[in-house]
Amino acid sequence: MNALAFAPADLGYETRVRGSFARQPFMDHIGARITGLAPGYCEITVDHRRELTQQHGFVHGGVLASIADSAAGYAAFSLMPADASILTVEYKLNLLRPGRGEAMIARGRVLKPGRTLTVVQSDVFARVDGGEQQVVSSLQTLICLLGKADDASGAPGATR
Amino acid sequence: MNALAFAPADLGYETRVRGSFARQPFMDHIGARITGLAPGYCEITVDHRRELTQQHGFVHGGVLASIADSAAGYAAFSLMPADASILTVEYKLNLLRPGRGEAMIARGRVLKPGRTLTVVQSDVFARVDGGEQQVVSSLQTLICLLGKADDASGAPGATR
Amino acid sequence: MNALAFAPADLGYETRVRGSFARQPFMDHIGARITGLAPGYCEITVDHRRELTQQHGFVHGGVLASIADSAAGYAAFSLMPADASILTVEYKLNLLRPGRGEAMIARGRVLKPGRTLTVVQSDVFARVDGGEQQVVSSLQTLICLLGKADDASGAPGATR
Amino acid sequence: MNALAFAPADLGYETRVRGSFARQPFMDHIGARITGLAPGYCEITVDHRRELTQQHGFVHGGVLASIADSAAGYAAFSLMPADASILTVEYKLNLLRPGRGEAMIARGRVLKPGRTLTVVQSDVFARVDGGEQQVVSSLQTLICLLGKADDASGAPGATR
Repeated sequence: MNALAFAPADLGYETRVRGSFARQPFMDHIGARITGLAPGYCEITVDHRRELTQQHGFVHGGVLASIADSAAGYAAFSLMPADASILTVEYKLNLLRPGRGEAMIARGRVLKPGRTLTVVQSDVFARVDGGEQQVVSSLQTLICLLGKADDASGAPGATR
Repeated sequence: MNALAFAPADLGYETRVRGSFARQPFMDHIGARITGLAPGYCEITVDHRRELTQQHGFVHGGVLASIADSAAGYAAFSLMPADASILTVEYKLNLLRPGRGEAMIARGRVLKPGRTLTVVQSDVFARVDGGEQQVVSSLQTLICLLGKADDASGAPGATR
Repeated sequence: MNALAFAPADLGYETRVRGSFARQPFMDHIGARITGLAPGYCEITVDHRRELTQQHGFVHGGVLASIADSAAGYAAFSLMPADASILTVEYKLNLLRPGRGEAMIARGRVLKPGRTLTVVQSDVFARVDGGEQQVVSSLQTLICLLGKADDASGAPGATR
Repeated sequence: MNALAFAPADLGYETRVRGSFARQPFMDHIGARITGLAPGYCEITVDHRRELTQQHGFVHGGVLASIADSAAGYAAFSLMPADASILTVEYKLNLLRPGRGEAMIARGRVLKPGRTLTVVQSDVFARVDGGEQQVVSSLQTLICLLGKADDASGAPGATR
């Protein structure tokens, strides 16, 4: 699964991805940050904080889904042309283990890029005692909207 | 789909569900609250707030997933015995429209209850100009863990 | 879920759907037939036959998936223009009960039509002793390919 | 993803898996055969035959789903105790490319084994001109039923 072997359509993909991420207030609200980025690949990390937990003290499944979704989205977005916007069409997610550990790390890798649709595998790992344990496996479909650059100039009319 | 025709195994289900929900710091962090509850059914609402949005000003897909997941979980949990804990096994979610509107309302309805596994349909609707538009359709699988009451006494060993 | 309230883009949708179905050798191989059709809706039935079963004598999950997928595809296809072809992008399917009974009936209903993507709920019911039991719940995403009519003239380059 | 590093609970797993597979008339009906087997891993192959195709001459998505499902099921079953039966709970499947080629090869690998639930990644590849192309990516959940051996003695009451 050498997902890193993709050539980006837009050499400025890193600026474009980081700029879009920075415009997401919810990513800031949960303390998420991009910790890895390459063509067809994105890693997003959140630290374990009390306000992100569920009733047993583990990181809430909704937080895991949020970072898995964003990592998948930006992995796909990194391969798209400069003049494109991206939407998550759908995903499926298995919760393999509780979100226990110091940090949760989502890694999205493009499985199949496409002009319209891109399929991404996005997994989440918990950092526990210096090692890692997989807590989520997910499979996601994203759509590319051409001619609707994802910039600060405003919301496109037809986003998901 | 008369999902409301279920008889609860535990007549104290409402106290049990509301107590568990209140112990989830993340639900508080996103401003989610239970706005409807019946055997096999749970409704959870969040208001549109800036810190819940993505780059185009819509409610983030991760927030929609979080309330869809919680509504599904508590719909299933409402039918379980007092002496049970619940885990989300997996779900699949389609994002049908952007999360635009004053509030997002997740409604989980049990499709098929079971001693071990319960399948729930959980949809999210946006309140827009007094009407409602469906923004998410999801299908979820949950597992019942007997002998591990979901109470304040501590985290069971294997819950998510 | 009044999925029947759709207006077809092509008034000849019924001929188009039945013609496409008739060109699928696999549907014939499993004895599947269209038993209901309306704009945004398609019903496909197979009888319980020994060659469709798994090790316990129930209809194989693969057969249930096949008719759920076809019912979803033709529900979506019924709403598309004459000049279009359709592909299943992905689906998720829960097996709720064993495929026990005289016949299995898949019913696809469009949840959200779109110019490019259409989302369909497709459920399978078993006919048992004159009644029906739901055996499958599924949620499917399909894509419309314009300018590639699904006719006998040949295979489009990019269809599955 | 060294899924092969699993130790089987039952050393007779190969006989058990092959016996169960041989009792599935539907696998015979589509010409499917087991072409690889190890603890936590199963490969199932079908040749491209006209009766397995859809309207464009490609292998039908229902056939791809059938072998992906069976490969996942037997990958999980290989790790279960002798005294167990298995059911598919649910799966999600992305169709990445058309089923074009001489043969379709499904490979299921256990991602996360469990006493009750097992999660399996099951992918399908097309053999084309001596090489392989991935046509399906799927993620599946299976349940182990103890005390219900999957043998010729009869159908358990609750299996699909």
